[in-house]
Amino acid sequence: MAFDTAHVPSGDWKTLLSRRAALVEAELEQTYTGDDVPPGLARVARYSLLAGGKRLRPVLCLACARACAPRGGAGLDRGVLPFAAGLEMIHTYSLIHDDLPAMDDDDLRRGRPTCHKAWGEAAAILAGDALLTDAFGRMAAAPLPPERVLEAVRLAARAAGAAGMAGGQMLDLNAEGHALSCAELVDLNARKTGALLAAACECGAVLAGADAARRAALRRFGEELGIAFQITDDILDVVGDEAEAGKNLRHDGRAAKATWPSLLGLDAARALAEEHCRAAEKAVEPALFDGQEADFLRLAARYLVSRTC
Amino acid sequence: MAFDTAHVPSGDWKTLLSRRAALVEAELEQTYTGDDVPPGLARVARYSLLAGGKRLRPVLCLACARACAPRGGAGLDRGVLPFAAGLEMIHTYSLIHDDLPAMDDDDLRRGRPTCHKAWGEAAAILAGDALLTDAFGRMAAAPLPPERVLEAVRLAARAAGAAGMAGGQMLDLNAEGHALSCAELVDLNARKTGALLAAACECGAVLAGADAARRAALRRFGEELGIAFQITDDILDVVGDEAEAGKNLRHDGRAAKATWPSLLGLDAARALAEEHCRAAEKAVEPALFDGQEADFLRLAARYLVSRTC
Repeated sequence: MAFDTAHVPSGDWKTLLSRRAALVEAELEQTYTGDDVPPGLARVARYSLLAGGKRLRPVLCLACARACAPRGGAGLDRGVLPFAAGLEMIHTYSLIHDDLPAMDDDDLRRGRPTCHKAWGEAAAILAGDALLTDAFGRMAAAPLPPERVLEAVRLAARAAGAAGMAGGQMLDLNAEGHALSCAELVDLNARKTGALLAAACECGAVLAGADAARRAALRRFGEELGIAFQITDDILDVVGDEAEAGKNLRHDGRAAKATWPSLLGLDAARALAEEHCRAAEKAVEPALFDGQEADFLRLAARYLVSRTC
Repeated sequence: MAFDTAHVPSGDWKTLLSRRAALVEAELEQTYTGDDVPPGLARVARYSLLAGGKRLRPVLCLACARACAPRGGAGLDRGVLPFAAGLEMIHTYSLIHDDLPAMDDDDLRRGRPTCHKAWGEAAAILAGDALLTDAFGRMAAAPLPPERVLEAVRLAARAAGAAGMAGGQMLDLNAEGHALSCAELVDLNARKTGALLAAACECGAVLAGADAARRAALRRFGEELGIAFQITDDILDVVGDEAEAGKNLRHDGRAAKATWPSLLGLDAARALAEEHCRAAEKAVEPALFDGQEADFLRLAARYLVSRTC
């Protein structure tokens, strides 16, 4: 069954998303359950990893793999899931470390005390380190052709490393209290949020053995989605509801951070998010992909700019 | 030319080691030189990565690969070097994070201010994160058969993750001020120091395409070496020279940490290091390996327990 993006309310996508997220959740649940990991560290890492969350990166990775291999079926899911779980472990590590006192100094995340608030700074640093490290072990263990897995591991490392997410967080810290140009903010966002989202999509294609055209299209989809996602985050920081968000908002204003609303105003920021959402939808060209999964990806983009938390 | 371990003074091994370390150094020098990495982050990461050091893990990885494939020659080195550099990046990240105020709170490392002392805490956390992440990208890019590289990546992740180094650091923090049994100290050391050393050796074997017997022997070599190395570190913390070590010593005593000298006394600790050194030497059975590289490995073990810094 295919979806008409113009007429499906976001609630439907939420149902679809939560069904996919449940697959990811079951995979993540198996993290650090063995007796080879010191219980004190397992507890802290699982506190943050299993605190809910949209599971956006793994869900996108799975969907992109499926979109490239419509007849890959359950076997492909089984191969992609460990890799997808690794992406979520990387995302979780980045949240734990970004929340640290020396970084953004946040005390609320997903409606609960941040990791260092609950377990202390040393444990939070180590839990982040462990999740990041074991993410690569898990990704490298995906039961798929080795050359595909290796290429996807390289993509994920590049997206999360100094040229990507870690570099973006450095730029973000250095930008506090400074005026940024649009180009600088685009670069910062592309690294901090966009890189891992785009890699999640591209890795799905790579793991499915997609050709160059599909791979490039899904990378493009992920990049556009990443920009739309970040602009929406910035907007929600201004107009969102803290209880619904489960984290402290108005943070960007307090720290005098450059954001899309502060740079363009709310209305222009909304229009820009819409523009990138359309570009993301357009990247998933019907001629290239399996219809149902392509619809899923287009709905994902639409949902992510219309969300309220 | 082969070396008789009984008659070669440690100075000769130092020369051999520094020649190998120079290969690693040249590879590491290429880290974060591109304009894709924010200069502020590249500077901090390179400050710690290029601060000298014995380059023990990459040198052992290279030597173990060579020992398994005597006729692998320069082509094998070229394939193993990026992987070996990744191991050193992981080691460097662990030093940066262990030195943080929330962890061991050290201000001197390799004769210079620790990373966070020189660049601030946020930059140090991020530099460590970036080095750890990009280590995996670099290892995954080793130009060798994909299934060998993937297996080595899995080994390295397991050694550095929650079941290995990160778990060991957690146990170490929790052990401060507590009495540990010998068994607990063995477990702590095996994770904190032994795991990555053993993985470096086993990865060398895996990357060279070694059979199971050689692989197991080199893992065993690395494990025994790791124990001997840690006991020697503990001894040097008591009797060593701070200027020569380039870091603060007598640290373990101040923090009331369980160490081998505190548990057994200095003489018994020395005897235990010697015992594990012999076990390491024995693991490199002459029948299995290329003579010259096996001699190099045995000399490495001997040097590591007789070193003064």
